[in-house]
Amino acid sequence: LPDFHIRPLFGRDFDRGFLELVSQLSPVNLDIDAARAIFITRLQARVYTWVALLKDRPIATASMFIEPKWIHAGGKVAHVEDVVVDSEYRKHGVGRLLIHALEREARAKGCYKMILDCSAEAVAFYERCSFRAHETAMRLNLARVTDVAER
Amino acid sequence: LPDFHIRPLFGRDFDRGFLELVSQLSPVNLDIDAARAIFITRLQARVYTWVALLKDRPIATASMFIEPKWIHAGGKVAHVEDVVVDSEYRKHGVGRLLIHALEREARAKGCYKMILDCSAEAVAFYERCSFRAHETAMRLNLARVTDVAER
Repeated sequence: LPDFHIRPLFGRDFDRGFLELVSQLSPVNLDIDAARAIFITRLQARVYTWVALLKDRPIATASMFIEPKWIHAGGKVAHVEDVVVDSEYRKHGVGRLLIHALEREARAKGCYKMILDCSAEAVAFYERCSFRAHETAMRLNLARVTDVAER
Repeated sequence: LPDFHIRPLFGRDFDRGFLELVSQLSPVNLDIDAARAIFITRLQARVYTWVALLKDRPIATASMFIEPKWIHAGGKVAHVEDVVVDSEYRKHGVGRLLIHALEREARAKGCYKMILDCSAEAVAFYERCSFRAHETAMRLNLARVTDVAER
């Protein structure tokens, strides 16, 4: 696709539908100013977001955090979070290209593994990306998700 | 226990068996100087390690990273990593006290959930800590783990 590319998120993507894209995953409820503040908070926390663009419009996104471990002599693990492809562009391989872009980045950063948690429905997709099920993802809810900023 | 307490990792814990404790989880292969460098890298990446101490000796440890999300209006998620209790002190509730200390910290930081990945054998322990299985943890190996620093 000549008009397709994958790159880190830029601030201007907020004006081109990035937040609407993420809201296909879960409610976002951020205006653009609040989103810019969250963007800075995430960069400070080293949580990096990538976007796949078609004609400068974000049609898929995923985020990655690289954790340096004590184990394996300080080996690094890439955590993949919040993967979503626009519902209009699914089943065309966009998600797989995005995951492969993150894999290249994780390899370049020297990570020994990539991990992520996904629903039972998404397991087959990640298997096509060469992932394998290996553990159980556990969750403890601490607060009701109000979708309102209360930080 | 009068001589038991839980606190963030200090540098002096390296001289008191911290690395030997972590190596019960997976090989560590770091000398103390290399471990101090990893400690700094982890603090920069905001991956925080806690230790449970008995008479100033680390007998359990766990780490936590707090991820600010786009979704849920910038809600925060606590990721728990690398939980280990010294084999000599298991089945005495030390792990549960440690997880509860992390839970208090995650609540204090405003997280809406805590998540972690664990083996099938550990599910019952985390259920006793009020966690519930919710997704599948997927893994993609990127490099052979050599247990030698090659960063």
